[in-house]
Amino acid sequence: MSLTLAPAAQDLLFREARTANTFTDEPVTDEQIRAVYDLVKYGPTAFNLTPLRILLIRSTDARARLVAHMEEGNRAKTSAAPLVAILATDNEFHEETHRLVPHAPGIKDAYFSERPVREHSALLNGSLQCAYFVVGVRAAGLAAGPMTGFDHEGVQKEFLDDDHTPLMVVNLGKPGPKAWYPRSPRLDYDDVVTTL
Amino acid sequence: MSLTLAPAAQDLLFREARTANTFTDEPVTDEQIRAVYDLVKYGPTAFNLTPLRILLIRSTDARARLVAHMEEGNRAKTSAAPLVAILATDNEFHEETHRLVPHAPGIKDAYFSERPVREHSALLNGSLQCAYFVVGVRAAGLAAGPMTGFDHEGVQKEFLDDDHTPLMVVNLGKPGPKAWYPRSPRLDYDDVVTTL
Repeated sequence: MSLTLAPAAQDLLFREARTANTFTDEPVTDEQIRAVYDLVKYGPTAFNLTPLRILLIRSTDARARLVAHMEEGNRAKTSAAPLVAILATDNEFHEETHRLVPHAPGIKDAYFSERPVREHSALLNGSLQCAYFVVGVRAAGLAAGPMTGFDHEGVQKEFLDDDHTPLMVVNLGKPGPKAWYPRSPRLDYDDVVTTL
Repeated sequence: MSLTLAPAAQDLLFREARTANTFTDEPVTDEQIRAVYDLVKYGPTAFNLTPLRILLIRSTDARARLVAHMEEGNRAKTSAAPLVAILATDNEFHEETHRLVPHAPGIKDAYFSERPVREHSALLNGSLQCAYFVVGVRAAGLAAGPMTGFDHEGVQKEFLDDDHTPLMVVNLGKPGPKAWYPRSPRLDYDDVVTTL
């Protein structure tokens, strides 16, 4: 065993953590989401520009509007989860360069003057932050149900604007009865890792 | 404090973990990378299709070929790190559907028959797995130095093929003297999170 992280933490974050499809009624509080954010905001991104933005869907009205854009197989669980989050990227993330990279504000113009470059960077780095968020949700003792199965253009028009692109929708809560399917296989190390 | 994860683990993975720019001479072993992979392979991806592939750059020749494609500011540290990994996506990841989604092999044709759809999914899900990898490296008591500052087309041509796209290069090792810059600011919770 070559890991420093304690076995209980390995289990909590990866080995026993699973994508939940059912949840108990126990609420997920703003304090929990704040604790998750205050942990995972430190995850590394290119130039520290952290393009992820989070919409918490708490109201009945917003929930119904979101569920209408989910793929059919995702509707029941997205309706029932104690809390749902839309994770999106801000394609104009470079406007925060003066705050986030105060020692090198010139990178805004040197690297990010073109929108397609920003969109690619926002997708890559926003996705990194989605993963940190899922790990953080698990660190809070909650289960996450991340989904990309929804009408992305529909969610963008319903909740966002032209500068924000949805990446995933995540159901959040304590796992309920029969919360998950059997674990699917993973690729072997030798299928994934090549040494040169 | 609303987190279940032990404070020492929070520090190891996020609060005290930093992007390292210098490293000690202590080698990073294949056993360590195997332990990292065997932990983070469980991180969730869409349909469990796990498009990430990893090239470990161990030989002097391969290291020199990689360094030539790095941005100038990344060359010295990429030359000096005990181990360097190229993290890439396999845009033909759907060919593993029968192994990875044995209960629903039909998703291969239902969702992934078009290359642009696969490229977008591979970028998003491969980036999630890059983040899990960085967290796993930290779980192994190592520091990661993830970089997107390199000639992506050059690295692809030098080390990969048309079906594989590089996402990041990561320096790996124990942090050396003056390994990091002061921590840059992060966005406030209220700048990132909106509740509807």
